Amino acid sequence: MNASAALIERYWASAQARDWAAFAALLDSDVVYEVPQTRERVRGRQAYVAFNAGWPSDWDAEVLDVIADGERAFSRIAFYPQRQDRSQMQEGLTVFDIRDGLITRILDYWPEPYAAPQRAWAQVERY
Amino acid sequence: MNASAALIERYWASAQARDWAAFAALLDSDVVYEVPQTRERVRGRQAYVAFNAGWPSDWDAEVLDVIADGERAFSRIAFYPQRQDRSQMQEGLTVFDIRDGLITRILDYWPEPYAAPQRAWAQVERY
Repeated sequence: MNASAALIERYWASAQARDWAAFAALLDSDVVYEVPQTRERVRGRQAYVAFNAGWPSDWDAEVLDVIADGERAFSRIAFYPQRQDRSQMQEGLTVFDIRDGLITRILDYWPEPYAAPQRAWAQVERY
Repeated sequence: MNASAALIERYWASAQARDWAAFAALLDSDVVYEVPQTRERVRGRQAYVAFNAGWPSDWDAEVLDVIADGERAFSRIAFYPQRQDRSQMQEGLTVFDIRDGLITRILDYWPEPYAAPQRAWAQVERY
């Protein structure tokens, strides 16, 4: 595993452990977090740690993919808003910028199910 | 740029050029394409090329990110369903599996805008 992939694994492991000191140590002091779907933004390590530490539910996350290439990384998680309720799952896709071993920017996506459109090509299965 | 990142750049460049022979040459014969949000699946190189070649609009795509790490890659694009209408843009996030220099699996996500939820932490800006 390369160093950037290891950084992202530590990001999710420390968040899962609610170890906010370890989590904060992975972030640049000027980290910027953005949710393009809602156009929300959180600026700075302190605010971003508080945003996570104050999350109002006992969530659980399972890391499905980490892809990292030097100063860029991507992760895909299965996010359970309530740890005890495995029927509610949301996939989370995150793009990270990394500099000097710290996370400088986080783009967070939460793609929701939607109705399959009519397709021009008939050979589309449903699973 | 590593070989897997170059492969993904060629994937988007050949799709953009509607060069379906070049596009097909990047795909494993057993490639599987899936849209987790709709649970749609297309199996095999021939069907997947036809699915793309038969797309019913003159779309345009701009590659925003490519992150690749050996046998895994990720891309993020700005997708314009109608080339002439720049007011309609949809971000597309795609995860690729790669083996022997060919794409074997494609997971495609289309995260839509949604209303920002109430947040426990007040320091969330809107942009």
